[in-house]
Amino acid sequence: MRTQVGIIGAGPAGLLLSQLLHLAGIESVVLESRSRDAIEATIRAGILEHGTVDLMERIGAGERLKREGFRHDGIHLRFDGQTRRIDFPELTGGKSVYLYPQHEVIKDLVALRLRLGGDIRFAVRNVTLHDLETTAPRLKYVNSQGAAEEIHCDYIVGCDGTNGVSKPSIPEGKLKTYEKVYPFGWFGILCKAPPSSDELIYAQHQRGFALASTRSPEIQRMYFQVDPTEKVQNWSDDRIWAEFRARLETRDGWLPAEGPIFSKVIVGMRSLVTEPMQYGRLFLAGDAAHVVPPTGAKGLNLAAADVQVLANGFEAFYRRGNSEPLLRYSDMALKRIWKAQRFSWWMTSLMHRAPGDDDFRYQMQMAELDYVTSSPLGAASLAENYVGLPMQYAS
Amino acid sequence: MRTQVGIIGAGPAGLLLSQLLHLAGIESVVLESRSRDAIEATIRAGILEHGTVDLMERIGAGERLKREGFRHDGIHLRFDGQTRRIDFPELTGGKSVYLYPQHEVIKDLVALRLRLGGDIRFAVRNVTLHDLETTAPRLKYVNSQGAAEEIHCDYIVGCDGTNGVSKPSIPEGKLKTYEKVYPFGWFGILCKAPPSSDELIYAQHQRGFALASTRSPEIQRMYFQVDPTEKVQNWSDDRIWAEFRARLETRDGWLPAEGPIFSKVIVGMRSLVTEPMQYGRLFLAGDAAHVVPPTGAKGLNLAAADVQVLANGFEAFYRRGNSEPLLRYSDMALKRIWKAQRFSWWMTSLMHRAPGDDDFRYQMQMAELDYVTSSPLGAASLAENYVGLPMQYAS
Repeated sequence: MRTQVGIIGAGPAGLLLSQLLHLAGIESVVLESRSRDAIEATIRAGILEHGTVDLMERIGAGERLKREGFRHDGIHLRFDGQTRRIDFPELTGGKSVYLYPQHEVIKDLVALRLRLGGDIRFAVRNVTLHDLETTAPRLKYVNSQGAAEEIHCDYIVGCDGTNGVSKPSIPEGKLKTYEKVYPFGWFGILCKAPPSSDELIYAQHQRGFALASTRSPEIQRMYFQVDPTEKVQNWSDDRIWAEFRARLETRDGWLPAEGPIFSKVIVGMRSLVTEPMQYGRLFLAGDAAHVVPPTGAKGLNLAAADVQVLANGFEAFYRRGNSEPLLRYSDMALKRIWKAQRFSWWMTSLMHRAPGDDDFRYQMQMAELDYVTSSPLGAASLAENYVGLPMQYAS
Repeated sequence: MRTQVGIIGAGPAGLLLSQLLHLAGIESVVLESRSRDAIEATIRAGILEHGTVDLMERIGAGERLKREGFRHDGIHLRFDGQTRRIDFPELTGGKSVYLYPQHEVIKDLVALRLRLGGDIRFAVRNVTLHDLETTAPRLKYVNSQGAAEEIHCDYIVGCDGTNGVSKPSIPEGKLKTYEKVYPFGWFGILCKAPPSSDELIYAQHQRGFALASTRSPEIQRMYFQVDPTEKVQNWSDDRIWAEFRARLETRDGWLPAEGPIFSKVIVGMRSLVTEPMQYGRLFLAGDAAHVVPPTGAKGLNLAAADVQVLANGFEAFYRRGNSEPLLRYSDMALKRIWKAQRFSWWMTSLMHRAPGDDDFRYQMQMAELDYVTSSPLGAASLAENYVGLPMQYAS
């Protein structure tokens, strides 16, 4: 069979792209190695920037997000025993973010695509990319029934994440990688407890970073910084709560809500950018091309920004025969990506204690937290990055 | 003899303090180890914040500064072959800085103090501090004629810089020091050439930082980053200009004005804060308590801010018998100091290449320079720090 755009990966990038292409009258097929149940059941965090929420609404996937998601009008920065709030709407002219987990985004997009007759092939295996340097690239794979299949495409887009097959299909030496691996990780828990706070609490503490997030009225997601080689089994529930209490403490005696912990996981932290995001007729989008540490909550939003640039390029190509925007995709997307990388790196550096950090470094962190919460300009600068920079700074 | 406030050091901090005390009707004596000619002839850079210029005018020392100094309404940030300007008045509601070298500030303050009958004792030796824990501290020294003298004071203020006698007079263990030594230094030159630019050019380059400053219509001050162990004699004039051309290059072919170099010096770079800035009846002000790397142009301005807080304290004590503000001097001054330290550290980290910096780090610097020159909030944040934070963020 053939299609116009072959998309590898049914994560937010691939699903958003297939819907944007659909709205532009462009055909696509999405290949996904996992089952529909599996991708919809994998619990992932999700803070949607102002612009990502707009995008979801614009493409017809915003209804449940607006109804069941939580609008967050600010975050709390906790340091030196005090808490200071960054008020997003006040500082950005009315913008906010939504807390709406990534797997809920995926559920909505899968349902939308299937309702509109979209072609998503779940549980495929052995995806390989071919003839990328030609005008007729192909995708080969084994379908969920075990049969070998092939799709002839005009273009292929790799939306298959960090460990996907797309990036390794590009010949060695064609890509430049920029990477920073942070000397710490996040210990994440899910617990049955009411929210400790209506908004996220980012705590900088001598013992290390902690984050009190919120998932639903009954389930909370919380994180604290650990050595990346730390083992989950070293941490009893009691020890975990003692650590949270120590790091989240305030002078006025505030304590996080506690409850039974039903998930414990340790994740590494890194920043990664691959340039360019194109090779021949293959484009990379989202995590397939770049990774951000979770501190700035930018991952899903960068994927959404990438595919908007890409969809505009495809539209120019198919509607007006203009391939110029497609050729500029990598340069245009990277402008936003580097700005988001900077913010994520800055927020990560500001909030964590790294091995070898001395007292001067700690004082710099305290002074920076003090500045961004006491200067209206410092606060507004943080806020405009958190809710998502205006698109004019991104292209 | 006796006085109310004994001041050690006739630099900007000591001279400004003695004038502020004079205006409040409080007596002081200033001891200076060097001759008047020597302190007035030592060429030092000087960027005066908006508030420091106001202070100089308010105390009657602003006339020549306003006439002969150069008002700078911006700086240029040069990176990736392009130049972007930060416009101070536009971004800060009308504020600017003045380029007016520190030795000119000193000349004006010495002349003013002597005209008003101020007591400045130059070329004294062997200054020692005594009975700091009592209400009657004393200063002993040998005067310029070789005679031993003693001054009984209510308070002593150490304005004698990094290597002065005041700080070492405080018993060990009473002070905490925060310090960062940067892995680079500045190679500074003075040359006979017209200004390359009306405003300072801060250049971030893969080869390292460079700064094109301006001194007068005939003499220019320029700097470039070197290894702190570099030797002046390794650098011929030709090699120096080649380095400046390489680091200051722009895509449109701009080149710095060149001329005979008549001074070459290498200075180290560090950040240092000593807490508290008080021991008994001794206070520390200016460089005696803290050092900033020169990148943010904050040194003289911090000294001016310190002595304003201190003078207010003395005024409350002598006029109203309220010693509370004096006791709070250290806490109050340190709020501004840490903010200026943060800015100086940030500006230094942003503009220099450190040994071991990788490509990711360079990309973060480029992204930050792009952000602070393309986001109006980022630019305004830099500008408000450069011209001097409003006093409400400092106390």
